[in-house]
Amino acid sequence: MSSIKDVASLAGVAVGTVSRVINNIGSVKPHTRDKVLAAIEQLNYVPNEVARNFKMQKSKMVALLLPSIWHPFFSELAYYIEDELDRYGFKLMLCNSGGKPEKELYYLDMLLQNKVAGVVGITYNHIENNVSADIPIVSIDRHFAKAITCVTSDNFDGGRIAFRELLKAGAKKPAFLGSRPEVYSETLRRKEGFLHEAVLHRIEPIVYEGPDPCLDDEGFYRTFLERFPEADGLFAITDMAAAKYIETAKSFGKRVPADVKVIGYDGIQDHPYFHPVLSTIRQPVEEMARTAVTLLLKKIEGEAVEQETYRIPVRFRPGETT
Amino acid sequence: MSSIKDVASLAGVAVGTVSRVINNIGSVKPHTRDKVLAAIEQLNYVPNEVARNFKMQKSKMVALLLPSIWHPFFSELAYYIEDELDRYGFKLMLCNSGGKPEKELYYLDMLLQNKVAGVVGITYNHIENNVSADIPIVSIDRHFAKAITCVTSDNFDGGRIAFRELLKAGAKKPAFLGSRPEVYSETLRRKEGFLHEAVLHRIEPIVYEGPDPCLDDEGFYRTFLERFPEADGLFAITDMAAAKYIETAKSFGKRVPADVKVIGYDGIQDHPYFHPVLSTIRQPVEEMARTAVTLLLKKIEGEAVEQETYRIPVRFRPGETT
Repeated sequence: MSSIKDVASLAGVAVGTVSRVINNIGSVKPHTRDKVLAAIEQLNYVPNEVARNFKMQKSKMVALLLPSIWHPFFSELAYYIEDELDRYGFKLMLCNSGGKPEKELYYLDMLLQNKVAGVVGITYNHIENNVSADIPIVSIDRHFAKAITCVTSDNFDGGRIAFRELLKAGAKKPAFLGSRPEVYSETLRRKEGFLHEAVLHRIEPIVYEGPDPCLDDEGFYRTFLERFPEADGLFAITDMAAAKYIETAKSFGKRVPADVKVIGYDGIQDHPYFHPVLSTIRQPVEEMARTAVTLLLKKIEGEAVEQETYRIPVRFRPGETT
Repeated sequence: MSSIKDVASLAGVAVGTVSRVINNIGSVKPHTRDKVLAAIEQLNYVPNEVARNFKMQKSKMVALLLPSIWHPFFSELAYYIEDELDRYGFKLMLCNSGGKPEKELYYLDMLLQNKVAGVVGITYNHIENNVSADIPIVSIDRHFAKAITCVTSDNFDGGRIAFRELLKAGAKKPAFLGSRPEVYSETLRRKEGFLHEAVLHRIEPIVYEGPDPCLDDEGFYRTFLERFPEADGLFAITDMAAAKYIETAKSFGKRVPADVKVIGYDGIQDHPYFHPVLSTIRQPVEEMARTAVTLLLKKIEGEAVEQETYRIPVRFRPGETT
């Protein structure tokens, strides 16, 4: 395999000149540049990225922090993030953090040491205490108070749309079902939008919440069904919560959508082969992913970004449950 | 941030000694090693990976090549591969190849240049012409003829199990439904196992196949239902094919499992909230992932691996379709 020295020798120039041509920095005479490029082509020389990163102390690697790639929403997100990074020659390093602070801080540390060019992802920890708003981090959904550039779906509008769609489907007594996280989360705005729309319609909705992580517990759904038998419309904070409610409701003799209309949030189902196909507020995953990468690359280039939070519009996707 | 020089200075040793301790190479007296480790701890020194990679010309990065992370089987696989790599301090670079040869060859080139330590993944191209069997590549499922170390589920046994389970569920006229790839693929063994078991039972099964990518085409399933109305048991080559068959069969008035018993292959459903919950041959994804990483790390260390193909046992997971 050819080295940069071979290129320099063949072109009859110094190694530093070849380096300037490759990295497109400093001034090189057009004639010299042509000689170097010809030598590169003749030798089929490929610059060694590891060596280049060492010299420039800069990597073309972006770390993606996710609680787990093994979840349809996250894997779709990762797909588009990798696709968008690839367009700009960046590579993606995957980290399943499992929500663990030590794994998140490890990748943050790699960022501070210039081993990765930036970090994009979903973090649940107070890493904002360790970083300024300017460094190359973009968060998907914010799960803490302080400002890190954040891309999210328009959760508030999603909640409003869900309320209106339940009414449109015939619900008279709509309910919100969710969890109450200990810290601020952008997803709280789903409830806020739902309640905002309820006020406009002069309807008092049912609000049923448990402390995290209630949504995994079947008893949570049973208690709801026992306490609020009058609920005839349900907006669940996620598709999975909607699906679990529907499964539990069956054993209470409740039919969906005949007795209860149900709307979820996420849009994790890609095809109509498994039932029920949920009526849902679809996250604009592709646009969220590409926006996050665009913002991250701006920050890597040292440019300022205009907003602190970018909220991407959502839409209702009708299924079999309304 | 502390440098290796600071560590050497505090410990009262040469930089090379610190380097030998960090990289665990060469001989260092226990007393000296203790002094270096104490200095590292006191200064909270973190070795710079980029610089270390440069010196050692070796990366602790493994590339994962997948057609698309946005598929439940692949995202589960990626989850466990990252988890296993992380245990050994390796990081995972994700590449959605989309099955494109140029993207696969690009990552192979990174491997040849020592920019990644190894490659694991699913490849559909004849990269084996460019590599020897010894270099650090492990394939999941083989989709070509020549030998690269391969980890796969026991597809042949899976086919046998599926045949027996269809009979056990009461099928008299079992059928295999699959696609006919142009090149050799390990997944062909699902059919071979099915046919092998049929011979043992002196039953002549229906075999229905189209050229790739027929499985995405609804007409493929309609034609099968028209041509073979007598089929009362179906082994589909993937869960998705099973689900599409079931959806199409509905419009022919066929009920599953009352009229037709159906078994898929993969086990992509993680929970019982969406129906039908498929009866399926479950891929041992976690064990495949961890085995692939173990083999890859052996190859990275220059050790030989014993077999060319590692076939991990599968089991039947009953659902609602048998």
